[in-house]
Amino acid sequence: MSNYSAGPEIERLIQLLAKLPGLGPRSARRVALHLLKKREALMGPLAEALSEAADKITACSTCGNLDVSDPCAICAAPGRDPSVICVVETVGDIWALERAGAFKGRYHVLGGVLSPLDGVRPDDLNIGRLLERAAAPEITEIVLALNATVDGQTTAHYLSDRLDGLDVTITSLARGVPVGGELDYLDDGTLAAAFKSRRPA
Amino acid sequence: MSNYSAGPEIERLIQLLAKLPGLGPRSARRVALHLLKKREALMGPLAEALSEAADKITACSTCGNLDVSDPCAICAAPGRDPSVICVVETVGDIWALERAGAFKGRYHVLGGVLSPLDGVRPDDLNIGRLLERAAAPEITEIVLALNATVDGQTTAHYLSDRLDGLDVTITSLARGVPVGGELDYLDDGTLAAAFKSRRPA
Repeated sequence: MSNYSAGPEIERLIQLLAKLPGLGPRSARRVALHLLKKREALMGPLAEALSEAADKITACSTCGNLDVSDPCAICAAPGRDPSVICVVETVGDIWALERAGAFKGRYHVLGGVLSPLDGVRPDDLNIGRLLERAAAPEITEIVLALNATVDGQTTAHYLSDRLDGLDVTITSLARGVPVGGELDYLDDGTLAAAFKSRRPA
Repeated sequence: MSNYSAGPEIERLIQLLAKLPGLGPRSARRVALHLLKKREALMGPLAEALSEAADKITACSTCGNLDVSDPCAICAAPGRDPSVICVVETVGDIWALERAGAFKGRYHVLGGVLSPLDGVRPDDLNIGRLLERAAAPEITEIVLALNATVDGQTTAHYLSDRLDGLDVTITSLARGVPVGGELDYLDDGTLAAAFKSRRPA
């Protein structure tokens, strides 16, 4: 290694970029060079967008969604069904469900899933607020839309137990063949679940 | 698609992030969420580093390297050999050569390679300044350290022609088996080149 460095400003930029998910030191250098090449069109606007988002965006104190307002646009929307809460792991899951347009109720972001290995315990998740919300008289259904992973399902079971005494229906997403999926490429667990939950055609 | 958007601030951030090389809309969303989660530790500092780099960093008017000073730290370094110029495609190549510590002269950044398909012609590259620099009496060698791609080698041939009348030695990087490389995994072209340029053990 030579003593030459690309200068502290570039080095610092590269180091910060390398902390982004999916980027390593090598791709961070590539991104930094690309940014320096597109200074007017990309680098300046990105710096601005970052500091604006960092300033303005906040977590909704009701559901944990990220938005510029609190309550967030979804919690505040008059057209959405106030009787159903869909529990998700992250804000990204809200975005995915909203893109699918599948749900018209409100959300609750746990902020992760229980994971003994990673040291994530119930107190680390946004569960207390969910129990409060679920106890409100207008709530009739809680959809546990957690990932179909071991940790996701453990968390779903835990939440079912905690919500047990309340007068709400607890549901979870269906398991089955993905739309467009080919049976030959599906894992055994999905195929078995799809077969078990088969329905009249 | 639902009409819900994650808010104009987040959408704009995601759109800008998706323009970075190696990121698409999906990974841009992941990066945006990660940044919003690590607001103090990563998002603020990154915004700052970006605007600072955008403000301060400039292209060296001699060699095209990016630095906070003009001439850049390499062109200005008194310890470096002023008689050899190493021609590279991009600033990233300077970084790579400096990390290897293989070269103690000065650089010249072409800003790309000739590519008829992409419409890159000699006028689009930093060639005029190279010819000026190469004509200076102290210059004895020009190393064409261009990529071993078709376009890189076409560009190297073109530069050799243009530099032909000058009293300088024109060299290029050796072709051969990469250090640590296994013959069985090498492409035929590399193997043939390494065999042709074999040397006494």
